[in-house]
Amino acid sequence: MKTDFRELKVEMRQRIMAGVWPLGTMLPNEVDLAEEFDCARATVNRAMRELAEEGLVDRKRKAGTRVRKVPRRQVSFGVPLVRAEIENSGARYRYALLRSEVSVVPDWLRAKMNLPEGVNVRRVQAMHYADGLPYQYEDRWLNLEYLSEAEGASFADTPASEWLVSQAPFSDVEMSLSAQTADVDVARLLECDTGAALFRVERCVWQQGRPITFARLLYHQGFNLTTRY
Amino acid sequence: MKTDFRELKVEMRQRIMAGVWPLGTMLPNEVDLAEEFDCARATVNRAMRELAEEGLVDRKRKAGTRVRKVPRRQVSFGVPLVRAEIENSGARYRYALLRSEVSVVPDWLRAKMNLPEGVNVRRVQAMHYADGLPYQYEDRWLNLEYLSEAEGASFADTPASEWLVSQAPFSDVEMSLSAQTADVDVARLLECDTGAALFRVERCVWQQGRPITFARLLYHQGFNLTTRY
Repeated sequence: MKTDFRELKVEMRQRIMAGVWPLGTMLPNEVDLAEEFDCARATVNRAMRELAEEGLVDRKRKAGTRVRKVPRRQVSFGVPLVRAEIENSGARYRYALLRSEVSVVPDWLRAKMNLPEGVNVRRVQAMHYADGLPYQYEDRWLNLEYLSEAEGASFADTPASEWLVSQAPFSDVEMSLSAQTADVDVARLLECDTGAALFRVERCVWQQGRPITFARLLYHQGFNLTTRY
Repeated sequence: MKTDFRELKVEMRQRIMAGVWPLGTMLPNEVDLAEEFDCARATVNRAMRELAEEGLVDRKRKAGTRVRKVPRRQVSFGVPLVRAEIENSGARYRYALLRSEVSVVPDWLRAKMNLPEGVNVRRVQAMHYADGLPYQYEDRWLNLEYLSEAEGASFADTPASEWLVSQAPFSDVEMSLSAQTADVDVARLLECDTGAALFRVERCVWQQGRPITFARLLYHQGFNLTTRY
């Protein structure tokens, strides 16, 4: 049976890791590899393309494929809804709306999302609990210029994030990860000491170039986001 | 000219985003799409595969391809060496070793990385500066059972991370992002107030199943890791 691209990829990766194809050197060309592995040239091409996507090799249109000297590493995180994040961990999810009100956009948000003066926004503050314990405090702003349905919605029962997925499923997101200390109000909500270091996620979301929402998410003390790559 | 897979992908994505193919519905089959777009079935297949990788559609072997109800979002970060991270921002990089010494592995690390009792480790504490300002404090442990060359190396001039890339370029990493407060020593090194909230990255690294290093990286106050997706 002919070699498929997955088998070929495993074999090529092993040669790179074992130093048969040393760091920085050229790989054999596609025609030779196709002959060696008794497979189509397209199979070699696909295997090389995926190794390039993984950052192990560099492909140049004319020059061929080279083993990278320093592998380009990428780390990926899933971005699930907070409900799914909690339920996937086996815990029971609970949502509690703290406050939801419409106002004129504050200056800092206008600057951050490049909004026109005087536009109305809805601010939604809410808590997300895992098995009854504070998990995440959400402070979200919705741009009513484009999300006019949010003018009347209160988000008493449904988190704004879930409503947004149905309104704007395919959007551009700028995400920023950082740390901040808990002030008195946040410490009360997340049941931690004032001054505790909290993991913070901020998201600006655009749909088709239009700014639609900004959210600041503060996670409970001790939270960590873990992944393997 | 025949449609290539990139053009096809753009068109298919637009149909999904415009609701021509609504959330949760089946796409037309490959044969029909190949006919509509005057292209090979393999071209349709590749476009669908990439849309699936992006989390827009779900493919089932027999059942066909469906638009996802809730797009699966993934966010990716590059993981450059700290020198590249700093130099790519246009700043001047400086490395300063604080301390480098060999000892028997402490219990907490033995538990964390599943090391045998009594193995020797080298602990390397170092600072990374951007334009003369503290950027990152690194507290790293190297497992001398497998990194025997690190027995004699002092890391006075070369950061351990750069040395490791040459020793173990293709490795498995578990990365954990969180927040911690600065104690007196860390505050002095990162030139911030005691109690400041700091962004923390912890990495365990294995090569071919063997634990080789654990690093705790504390970033300067106000640091954030930003990406778009």
